[in-house]
Amino acid sequence: MNETVAAVGPWLQYLDHAGIAVFALSGALVAAAKRQTLVTFIFFAVITGVGGGTVRDLLIGAPVFWIETNLFLFLCVAAGFIVWFLPARIWQGSALLWLDAFGLAAYATFGAAKGLAYGVAPLPALGMGVLTACLGGIIRDVLSGEPSILMRPELYVTAAALSAALMVGLLLLGLPGPIAGAIAALAGFALRGAAIRKGWSLPAYGR
Amino acid sequence: MNETVAAVGPWLQYLDHAGIAVFALSGALVAAAKRQTLVTFIFFAVITGVGGGTVRDLLIGAPVFWIETNLFLFLCVAAGFIVWFLPARIWQGSALLWLDAFGLAAYATFGAAKGLAYGVAPLPALGMGVLTACLGGIIRDVLSGEPSILMRPELYVTAAALSAALMVGLLLLGLPGPIAGAIAALAGFALRGAAIRKGWSLPAYGR
Amino acid sequence: MNETVAAVGPWLQYLDHAGIAVFALSGALVAAAKRQTLVTFIFFAVITGVGGGTVRDLLIGAPVFWIETNLFLFLCVAAGFIVWFLPARIWQGSALLWLDAFGLAAYATFGAAKGLAYGVAPLPALGMGVLTACLGGIIRDVLSGEPSILMRPELYVTAAALSAALMVGLLLLGLPGPIAGAIAALAGFALRGAAIRKGWSLPAYGR
Repeated sequence: MNETVAAVGPWLQYLDHAGIAVFALSGALVAAAKRQTLVTFIFFAVITGVGGGTVRDLLIGAPVFWIETNLFLFLCVAAGFIVWFLPARIWQGSALLWLDAFGLAAYATFGAAKGLAYGVAPLPALGMGVLTACLGGIIRDVLSGEPSILMRPELYVTAAALSAALMVGLLLLGLPGPIAGAIAALAGFALRGAAIRKGWSLPAYGR
Repeated sequence: MNETVAAVGPWLQYLDHAGIAVFALSGALVAAAKRQTLVTFIFFAVITGVGGGTVRDLLIGAPVFWIETNLFLFLCVAAGFIVWFLPARIWQGSALLWLDAFGLAAYATFGAAKGLAYGVAPLPALGMGVLTACLGGIIRDVLSGEPSILMRPELYVTAAALSAALMVGLLLLGLPGPIAGAIAALAGFALRGAAIRKGWSLPAYGR
Repeated sequence: MNETVAAVGPWLQYLDHAGIAVFALSGALVAAAKRQTLVTFIFFAVITGVGGGTVRDLLIGAPVFWIETNLFLFLCVAAGFIVWFLPARIWQGSALLWLDAFGLAAYATFGAAKGLAYGVAPLPALGMGVLTACLGGIIRDVLSGEPSILMRPELYVTAAALSAALMVGLLLLGLPGPIAGAIAALAGFALRGAAIRKGWSLPAYGR
């Protein structure tokens, strides 16, 4: 991780950790909704937590971020245990939906920045941001047999694309990483938040 | 891409571009059939267009072909917009089925040649051709909840295997790349074309 | 493969070959149960046989094990032909279930050892063992539209985790590879065997 941290700044690493933890919780919660076992809780937490970032790292030729340390898998395993042992009512409000919105924006911003740091062209770097933010959840949905977030009109992938596009654009314009990152992450979070509160969605194809 | 182009010849690059564009269109059309949003059109166009080649490059240890340039993702994004904005009746004939047959043969031939160029053994090189041609479509079907082309008796994967096997065999026999490529691509296209026109399919297991 | 063999010992290679052959058979049998064609038999045999090990190698940065030789794909293709041509009643007893239990334990042990040999941290090395053993079957289930082993309470992933955890722990304690491997593989096999004979399963989430 050290070279990445040097390239994209330590502040982004916190976004990364927060994104992983939130997505791991969301994976374990899908397992809970399906009345699964503890082993499946952990499996879904791991896949959802590190899935998007794993594919990103393979594509840009970076060492896979969770391989050389115990920390990241530990976060995911802990998320599985937390959902298993804490009372279910904790998760019944909209807290998780808002945490997920935060994770989405953080992860899209971090993914785009890491792509640029590895010499990826602008359009694929934007793609890396979207992938990092959305792929873990897509794999979780396919494995659990749920209709994927991809197939719903709700503004979700679009918010990730906004964060990723802003991050790529602002970094190419020469803004310092922390400022670009704050703007990009806040914009994606705001868009996703508006979608949650006001039910915004994209128009569907109608011909 | 430069080393690959040098190894397999620039003529193969056109096959590659054509295959990507055709598969990206087919991905966007699945999104259209499911009445999705523009963002989903683009997502499916990208996955279907570059999915097979991406996995091929990861497996053979090549840099992922669309990472260092904007061109390939731009082709896929453009395919998403084209399907979204053009009148739907354009796609209602069998034109796309034939374009897909062309993309299948071209992609299987290119994938096998790129595998050999990276020092892959003959049988895995054949596998790389089949994978390049078929995997994008398989991922597209799994994500959209469609029964995969894999599970239908129609001659499809077989045509890709024919192109890939001929390409590997003819290159190993010492034929020049353009001649081997033309024979391999035409044979796969002819077999797939016969399957489309005459409804050819493989026998199913019946014990 | 040579460096891996040197690192984990040639004895482990036999576990690897046996695991691939058994999983390839199980893939082809899913295709048979769905009345598919010979091409689909081969495709499922390949995906199930080499899928888990492929993702493991990509994650740990090893060359993908079946790329530089014809042997591994040949084993999988042969498994497809064997299931296609042999009488179906051969597979109707519980022989395959026990072979699969053997493959699961062998593959989890080998995957964990290979992870450690490539410098992976202990927790991710354990994850590599589970992944190697389970991912091929998960991909096979997703492609064929079956509910995945992941979503059933039966002790399966847990047995792989036991083998992988023992292998990582015993190797870190300094035990010689063959002894650690024998203990780890036998323990996982015994746990999976008990689950098969006595119907052991994990408790499901019930809040």
